[in-house]
Amino acid sequence: MSFFSKIAVIGGGTGARTILTGLKRQKDVLLSAIVTMSDDGGHTGVLRDELGVLPPGDLRQCLVALSDDRDDAWRKLFSFRFTDGSGNMSGQNVGNIILSALEKIYEDPIVALDTAHRLLDVKGRVIPVTLQGTTLCAELDDGTVVRGESNIDASDKPRAPIKRCFFETPSKINSEALTAIRDADVVVIGPGDFWTSIVPNLIVPEIPRALHELQQNGGRIFFVCNLVTKLGETDGYKASDFRNRINQLISPAHLDITIVNSAKPAQEILRRYEETGEYLVEDDLPHRDHTIYRQALISPEIGETVSGDKVRRSLLRHDGDILAQVIKRLMPGC
Amino acid sequence: MSFFSKIAVIGGGTGARTILTGLKRQKDVLLSAIVTMSDDGGHTGVLRDELGVLPPGDLRQCLVALSDDRDDAWRKLFSFRFTDGSGNMSGQNVGNIILSALEKIYEDPIVALDTAHRLLDVKGRVIPVTLQGTTLCAELDDGTVVRGESNIDASDKPRAPIKRCFFETPSKINSEALTAIRDADVVVIGPGDFWTSIVPNLIVPEIPRALHELQQNGGRIFFVCNLVTKLGETDGYKASDFRNRINQLISPAHLDITIVNSAKPAQEILRRYEETGEYLVEDDLPHRDHTIYRQALISPEIGETVSGDKVRRSLLRHDGDILAQVIKRLMPGC
Repeated sequence: MSFFSKIAVIGGGTGARTILTGLKRQKDVLLSAIVTMSDDGGHTGVLRDELGVLPPGDLRQCLVALSDDRDDAWRKLFSFRFTDGSGNMSGQNVGNIILSALEKIYEDPIVALDTAHRLLDVKGRVIPVTLQGTTLCAELDDGTVVRGESNIDASDKPRAPIKRCFFETPSKINSEALTAIRDADVVVIGPGDFWTSIVPNLIVPEIPRALHELQQNGGRIFFVCNLVTKLGETDGYKASDFRNRINQLISPAHLDITIVNSAKPAQEILRRYEETGEYLVEDDLPHRDHTIYRQALISPEIGETVSGDKVRRSLLRHDGDILAQVIKRLMPGC
Repeated sequence: MSFFSKIAVIGGGTGARTILTGLKRQKDVLLSAIVTMSDDGGHTGVLRDELGVLPPGDLRQCLVALSDDRDDAWRKLFSFRFTDGSGNMSGQNVGNIILSALEKIYEDPIVALDTAHRLLDVKGRVIPVTLQGTTLCAELDDGTVVRGESNIDASDKPRAPIKRCFFETPSKINSEALTAIRDADVVVIGPGDFWTSIVPNLIVPEIPRALHELQQNGGRIFFVCNLVTKLGETDGYKASDFRNRINQLISPAHLDITIVNSAKPAQEILRRYEETGEYLVEDDLPHRDHTIYRQALISPEIGETVSGDKVRRSLLRHDGDILAQVIKRLMPGC
């Protein structure tokens, strides 16, 4: 093992931002963030449709998380969203625009992303899992197919459980993602929305095989289990459901460690979640199992966050610094 | 006089960009660019109207001209305009968006502009002549009033001559512009569109007085005379008309030197101008006059350029490097 630990995080959205922000503060870590290219909602969707660029939202969040924070002006700029009025500019996110412009200027998503890394002085690499935008579809238990990540994500009432997700047209892995996984000491899956941030990475061809190769070479795979269920997506899932589904998706690889939250939030907060049909994930995994790591992981910061391109009230989220410490502690050789 | 020559350029648009690009390459020069805040056309107009920000187009062009060119990615990004399709993004300029976002983030145009200077590693200072957007009006000889810079600029057929320009509501000078003029060794007026880039700076209160103070302290004022007339704006103007009007506007200050082009372009190029009612400016200024400096000033580069927020075919323009050399040669003490 080299002096630096190579960690590849697989995910997207706010979850990826949280863990990357924490891991960036750890010493002797080389980070990669592998993110889904399935986002098609909000301003990201507009840019993707109009300009034919990669969906920039997840890339942007990870780039900001890993950017040098000595000068916060670029970070502020990349994260800024116009809110004024109802005009042309309303809802436009500056980081998304910059990433899209770079892709149009250089006419090559790889060169564009390299340039974004340089401009933002990013510590580590943000890697799109595919070099084309993908259209995610969910097949429900009743046979219905929901098309598009934003539609899968937008359920505000119960619906038939999701059976599986697939891409509308075949997708091809970005070879840089393959290399980042194979070369990692540890791959961390999550935290993130299960069906819309985690799964769209794992169903890309060759991802399971790359994870398997990683394990054969002594690398390990961690999964950060979700804190709460999501209406219309993971209703009734317990920790074992999340873990088992991941294991099915990445077979022949398997999870070495599942990291589960052990803190119980205040009743008032749980009640607010329950009002919208979302519940704390029950830890039904076996006790005294060396593949389960339990710790209080909930961030003390409670407030409104921007998730992808949607502003939503997210009361419960992982604490990036605690997660980072847990991952370092669980690293091979530590 | 200090070791560095302080040069303040007054103007806006492509003309300001040209001369600043040339002057930046000169050694031992401290540059300021004082630019009009009257632009209200194109994407700049949209941002100004929707967000209530300073019109960013002229600031952007000057920032790019003075930015560090070791890494051209930011320059490319700041200058990039989306052209795809007819959607929401079409016509949007990334540099304009970044400047507007900074103004919204910091809620202060001065802090926003300071940040833009730092981010782009700008050599020198770009200074808005006012800290509010101004609405330029032109009173024609027939009594008509044309409201808005883009309307004054957009004449494609002859109209009554412009008598004077004024602001719809009183404007207040940005104190930094005042300081930059007073402290300069040389102020260079132009090159630039006469009524829409030059005049909106000169009619800001206190500009003439600051220019007068500069001269009383031994500083000098140069004017780079226009190459061609502009339909509906400077029809029939000869070099003396440009010079005399500037002298009237800046009184009690006066031009120390008028820099006039002596090159005659090819007939073919002149013919194309004449087709749209525009003519080479005739040099009717006296010979053997030490306040006139004549030199071939036309750029050998001929092509399509972006002028402000409008794309137009601009065949004849000043050569920035030659202009810069001329100005250095004419500096006090040289």
